[in-house]
Amino acid sequence: MSTYNRLNKDDAAVLLVDHQAGLLSLVRDIDPDRFKNNVLALADMAEYFQLPTILTTSFEDGPNGPLVPELKAQFPDAPYIARPGQINAWDNEDFLNAVKATGKKQLIIAGVVTEVCVAFPALSALEKGFEVFVITDASGTFNAMTRDAAWQRMTAAGAQLMTWFGAACELHRDWRNDIEGLGTLFSNHIPDYRNLITSYNTLTSKA
Amino acid sequence: MSTYNRLNKDDAAVLLVDHQAGLLSLVRDIDPDRFKNNVLALADMAEYFQLPTILTTSFEDGPNGPLVPELKAQFPDAPYIARPGQINAWDNEDFLNAVKATGKKQLIIAGVVTEVCVAFPALSALEKGFEVFVITDASGTFNAMTRDAAWQRMTAAGAQLMTWFGAACELHRDWRNDIEGLGTLFSNHIPDYRNLITSYNTLTSKA
Amino acid sequence: MSTYNRLNKDDAAVLLVDHQAGLLSLVRDIDPDRFKNNVLALADMAEYFQLPTILTTSFEDGPNGPLVPELKAQFPDAPYIARPGQINAWDNEDFLNAVKATGKKQLIIAGVVTEVCVAFPALSALEKGFEVFVITDASGTFNAMTRDAAWQRMTAAGAQLMTWFGAACELHRDWRNDIEGLGTLFSNHIPDYRNLITSYNTLTSKA
Amino acid sequence: MSTYNRLNKDDAAVLLVDHQAGLLSLVRDIDPDRFKNNVLALADMAEYFQLPTILTTSFEDGPNGPLVPELKAQFPDAPYIARPGQINAWDNEDFLNAVKATGKKQLIIAGVVTEVCVAFPALSALEKGFEVFVITDASGTFNAMTRDAAWQRMTAAGAQLMTWFGAACELHRDWRNDIEGLGTLFSNHIPDYRNLITSYNTLTSKA
Amino acid sequence: MSTYNRLNKDDAAVLLVDHQAGLLSLVRDIDPDRFKNNVLALADMAEYFQLPTILTTSFEDGPNGPLVPELKAQFPDAPYIARPGQINAWDNEDFLNAVKATGKKQLIIAGVVTEVCVAFPALSALEKGFEVFVITDASGTFNAMTRDAAWQRMTAAGAQLMTWFGAACELHRDWRNDIEGLGTLFSNHIPDYRNLITSYNTLTSKA
Amino acid sequence: MSTYNRLNKDDAAVLLVDHQAGLLSLVRDIDPDRFKNNVLALADMAEYFQLPTILTTSFEDGPNGPLVPELKAQFPDAPYIARPGQINAWDNEDFLNAVKATGKKQLIIAGVVTEVCVAFPALSALEKGFEVFVITDASGTFNAMTRDAAWQRMTAAGAQLMTWFGAACELHRDWRNDIEGLGTLFSNHIPDYRNLITSYNTLTSKA
Amino acid sequence: MSTYNRLNKDDAAVLLVDHQAGLLSLVRDIDPDRFKNNVLALADMAEYFQLPTILTTSFEDGPNGPLVPELKAQFPDAPYIARPGQINAWDNEDFLNAVKATGKKQLIIAGVVTEVCVAFPALSALEKGFEVFVITDASGTFNAMTRDAAWQRMTAAGAQLMTWFGAACELHRDWRNDIEGLGTLFSNHIPDYRNLITSYNTLTSKA
Amino acid sequence: MSTYNRLNKDDAAVLLVDHQAGLLSLVRDIDPDRFKNNVLALADMAEYFQLPTILTTSFEDGPNGPLVPELKAQFPDAPYIARPGQINAWDNEDFLNAVKATGKKQLIIAGVVTEVCVAFPALSALEKGFEVFVITDASGTFNAMTRDAAWQRMTAAGAQLMTWFGAACELHRDWRNDIEGLGTLFSNHIPDYRNLITSYNTLTSKA
Repeated sequence: MSTYNRLNKDDAAVLLVDHQAGLLSLVRDIDPDRFKNNVLALADMAEYFQLPTILTTSFEDGPNGPLVPELKAQFPDAPYIARPGQINAWDNEDFLNAVKATGKKQLIIAGVVTEVCVAFPALSALEKGFEVFVITDASGTFNAMTRDAAWQRMTAAGAQLMTWFGAACELHRDWRNDIEGLGTLFSNHIPDYRNLITSYNTLTSKA
Repeated sequence: MSTYNRLNKDDAAVLLVDHQAGLLSLVRDIDPDRFKNNVLALADMAEYFQLPTILTTSFEDGPNGPLVPELKAQFPDAPYIARPGQINAWDNEDFLNAVKATGKKQLIIAGVVTEVCVAFPALSALEKGFEVFVITDASGTFNAMTRDAAWQRMTAAGAQLMTWFGAACELHRDWRNDIEGLGTLFSNHIPDYRNLITSYNTLTSKA
Repeated sequence: MSTYNRLNKDDAAVLLVDHQAGLLSLVRDIDPDRFKNNVLALADMAEYFQLPTILTTSFEDGPNGPLVPELKAQFPDAPYIARPGQINAWDNEDFLNAVKATGKKQLIIAGVVTEVCVAFPALSALEKGFEVFVITDASGTFNAMTRDAAWQRMTAAGAQLMTWFGAACELHRDWRNDIEGLGTLFSNHIPDYRNLITSYNTLTSKA
Repeated sequence: MSTYNRLNKDDAAVLLVDHQAGLLSLVRDIDPDRFKNNVLALADMAEYFQLPTILTTSFEDGPNGPLVPELKAQFPDAPYIARPGQINAWDNEDFLNAVKATGKKQLIIAGVVTEVCVAFPALSALEKGFEVFVITDASGTFNAMTRDAAWQRMTAAGAQLMTWFGAACELHRDWRNDIEGLGTLFSNHIPDYRNLITSYNTLTSKA
Repeated sequence: MSTYNRLNKDDAAVLLVDHQAGLLSLVRDIDPDRFKNNVLALADMAEYFQLPTILTTSFEDGPNGPLVPELKAQFPDAPYIARPGQINAWDNEDFLNAVKATGKKQLIIAGVVTEVCVAFPALSALEKGFEVFVITDASGTFNAMTRDAAWQRMTAAGAQLMTWFGAACELHRDWRNDIEGLGTLFSNHIPDYRNLITSYNTLTSKA
Repeated sequence: MSTYNRLNKDDAAVLLVDHQAGLLSLVRDIDPDRFKNNVLALADMAEYFQLPTILTTSFEDGPNGPLVPELKAQFPDAPYIARPGQINAWDNEDFLNAVKATGKKQLIIAGVVTEVCVAFPALSALEKGFEVFVITDASGTFNAMTRDAAWQRMTAAGAQLMTWFGAACELHRDWRNDIEGLGTLFSNHIPDYRNLITSYNTLTSKA
Repeated sequence: MSTYNRLNKDDAAVLLVDHQAGLLSLVRDIDPDRFKNNVLALADMAEYFQLPTILTTSFEDGPNGPLVPELKAQFPDAPYIARPGQINAWDNEDFLNAVKATGKKQLIIAGVVTEVCVAFPALSALEKGFEVFVITDASGTFNAMTRDAAWQRMTAAGAQLMTWFGAACELHRDWRNDIEGLGTLFSNHIPDYRNLITSYNTLTSKA
Repeated sequence: MSTYNRLNKDDAAVLLVDHQAGLLSLVRDIDPDRFKNNVLALADMAEYFQLPTILTTSFEDGPNGPLVPELKAQFPDAPYIARPGQINAWDNEDFLNAVKATGKKQLIIAGVVTEVCVAFPALSALEKGFEVFVITDASGTFNAMTRDAAWQRMTAAGAQLMTWFGAACELHRDWRNDIEGLGTLFSNHIPDYRNLITSYNTLTSKA
């Protein structure tokens, strides 16, 4: 019998790893329009649920480039660790301290590229007993083959693969907690859902 | 040595979760013609094997839209739980009671979208000791990447991935139990099989 | 400056070529659920617009198998030419006479397989001065490469490539000619459209 | 020797046909995130180059749903023709008059669905001697097969297939006409380009 | 530490399940040319290594059709169980006795369709303590989604996924056991390998 | 009005260009099992219709490797031109003389690789007034992008794109010319068709 | 009857348009490894056949980035036009003069992105009576849909679509003009061909 | 709680299995340009981290062909085991001794073909208690289906799936250990990364 390690908004923190302007040009397992949308959706989700969020970058003064400005702007007070060299964010003491300081046991991780910037801290965190939830669609890498291999490695180690939408639903639990809030999050990041709302509102406002 | 948890028509109930007219527009990991056919095939299968079936919807008065009318029509007496807000159907007491009232330990689940409406109750049910069989081809979601992640999460927790055809075959056990009944189910939902039957009947009726 | 050879319901006839139970097993450039739906949609379209329709088969007593029974049932009074051997239906005098008897100059053609049963009569008809409209999605063949080659051959000769939906729209011209009729045709064969109608009707009936 | 019919900002008008909330659920030949972005990019392009723009919808009070609100908001003063029934916008006198009133000979067309709402007015306009430029990536339809057929039909009639990016480049001619304006358009709608600019600005501001 | 359950030619038997002329028309997750080749390659492999081989069919007098004649011809003395109705071959006593009569503990299974005719006996055999090796490329089903689900179900239960080529290599162990025999098997069923041999032989015969 | 340049068995010759063991390793736009089958099917077709056939190779003593032995064996008396260096077979006088010696005006061409060994002689032949029919599925090249470009170049010049199956049907005209002969050709090279025949024969022999 | 406009090394010049480090991050219709190889192969081809080659860039001091250094290094004496703003290279007088100065009538064009940097000068050149050969596989753009539209626009205007390999073969005409030179070009840029040569050399050196 | 078996440059050895000129023609699950690059990148990585590396081939005097010369040249002093016949390299005593002689417990394996030359020694090594890291993108096989099956078999046995890039990052730990060295490795084998560096260097050198 399995245990359902369910995301809980009181137990979860979000780690955004290396979404940098340069590194993003390496991401080819997902269309750039969709990827950009997913990353911003995850950020909006983190903000909406007021989850402690940690930003980190790798070598941002070099070719990897700066953190995507939207993320910087959205989390002005979040811990921001510009790692001086550690490839695995978990190897950076400041980052580790920031994670511990959240006091959370559930880590929601996304980053670029999947098999390195996501998988390495995910595997490290699992070893330390954290529950790890990888946001697959806000993480990107070179190609689908690379992604599939990274997923299998992380799954075998106990990580749970999710999407920003699934995570938002699991965190929210019940629409009645805030119908408009969740609806807005979806409307802003799921064109098909926005269309449903548009049609619905048009018809009901006429009634 | 593994145990073969085999579908048994006396032990199984069917849960159809959130096949709603609005939500269906989100499904893009499977062609709409094929998906519609699969959902109706699963419903026909449930009816054919007289499996207790439970219908549920999420927020059906809003943009998610009403349950697909064909399902409502096919199971007029089935428990029908229009959830007032719970995203995970398992969190709804009426739904849970309906599941328990079936007295079955095997749950056949399909729904929209896979990583939420299917995965959440599947994970909850597994935790409670139910055997869970996900009907993958009557469940749909945003894209293949999302589906793959959901499958890995459910598989890791012990869910068995099946299709409506595989489930029908495992439930039926032996063609001789009712050749015509099973043949009709297949003929109505598998065009290639229907063609085989058409050719066969034409030739044998001439003989 | 090009001429817009536009489908006109008074000028058009439909040729359904070799949709036979055996031959359908050769069709692999399109999913069988979608293909079956498209063929029946084209048939419904022909009936709805009361277009003269001609059925023909090739060697139906052999392995190619009988005409799909739904088509036979839908057009009980249509000319039905079971060709004794001609591969190009246009080479069969009865078929040719049936085409001429319609008195139409626009031929809507679909069949199995695309590069033979569709392309051959299409090329023959073009040579004779007919306007030819190939219903691509109600025609099928071995694989996409084969289809692409057939399309290029037919396009180069002047055939226009359409779909059943496009043809229905071009024939109908204006929704006001019969809103319900066209809506029903679409609802029966386009699951996404049916969902739109379901949601719309639910909401407006509540208002 | 061919003539290069080149887009010219003084000669061009933009026709946005049936980008309606309901109809968008039919679009499956392109990812919804990318499609939404492309449509908004085309709208921004039209506004940026101050091209006369015409909006039209089909049956917007029914299941097809209202025009996407962003388009309505962006072109408050544009001719807006809610067609009472004509499927081919060109068949609607108001629409036709609006086109003629622009006084332009180059028509940039995009819409949903490609083989109907785009192809029909495109073919009509070509017949009348207009130069037609189809914005392929801001037009959508049921699937790739349908799109390919529509493209071949339009190409054979003389339409030129373009994208919003190609059209913007052809209209702009020279970056020096307004570097920042074009750069902003690209940055807002091409994530990869935005990243280039982000990295570039970061490095040059440090220098 | 894992155990390497390695195929051993003295321990292995081959089960060919329901490769019937009618059922083959259902197989669409693999190209028919490649599939036919793989099935015949597996048969040649079984014969080459003199592995006990069992043939079985389901309802071969009905639309499922007869066993592919090549298999019947290749194993004239093999147990051939035309099951009167059992869908899971393992439920048929004659089949089960035939399996037991081989005295082998390793079962190499292939069949049509994967999630039923292969997966059911595979799961049954695993429960009984057999080592199960699924020849994935000589097994086929409706589409890739169905296959993926079946693979995950079998893998979770302990089946090992292989191909005919991998199995042949694992059984053979050392080229020196019979260079020409293995080379012929590969040359007959791997066009690329045949080409290598052709070029090699041409050059060395000239030398 | 177009002319239907229809293959005629009295007017056609077959050119097999550079199907060499080495060059075949370059072919990646088509699965090797399918490609091998298509090439042998084309050869069988040529033999069946007794079309004059010409074999040619490029540099067969070097890395390009020898002609596939099956072709050499099937056409022992055909002109066989091992070109000393000309890349375009048409540039080789012996080849050109062999073509002229057939006295045919329709040339059926297939080869490796498509954009060179097929396209070059195709374009040369078109210039000289021959009718050219490219057998697309017995021609192969590096990838689909390369093939698509080659197809467009040849189509623009007037070549007709066909497949071996389409060509066989167009040459045969009427099944009654030799039912068994054509049936055997199809049965040997189309697994789905072979299955239809198997089922058909089984049922009719029982009747 | 068509004319075969055949590449001739005495008549051809090569235009490499905007292969810049920044713009390359936009290219997603072709794998980066393959694309890099193709561009360098085209450069090697130009050098090998001593074709006059022209380099040009767009806004190379901005985010578009510098010309790929390998190209700069390979053609140190080639005209190099860093365009101050013209998007269509043909609109730049220096570029146009450089083209005219070559005295060639055949223009081999490749660049980034296909529908702009390649298509615009291609269409301009065609209008001026040049023969245009697009090297499709050394040109890249956002996605396959964009590429397909660009190809149709250029083909309709008379451009010929080729690949670097096809162009090299058409230019070389006869292996005997320089076996080793052409072989080296292929060996350096076609891994499969290099393998053929490796095996060949190994075997023949042993003989 | 899982253990993170992390690659450690002091604990790891590299096994390159059967990257032979002939066998490479069998690899079709990955584009040849990309595959060649990945294999050379893995070799460069092994050299850069000074990992003990072992080369082995299977039957290199026959059609399988010689080891790719680049690998031979790069590791002139590495153990090189030309196996006389063992298909599983682990069955060869010299190979096994070479592995043991490295004294390493972590084995990084890549080879051709994946399900045989990689999977067999991987499974053998896992059984002996080694930690196994499969470099998936420097391993190739017949098609994606075959690869997927091989991956599942190896993952189930405890192998970790990685890529050369992921492995390099995990071995390096911290950029500061040698920024230029790692940057060069990436620049030589990741075109997108090279472009980032090119743009970065251009801009910073100007500053």
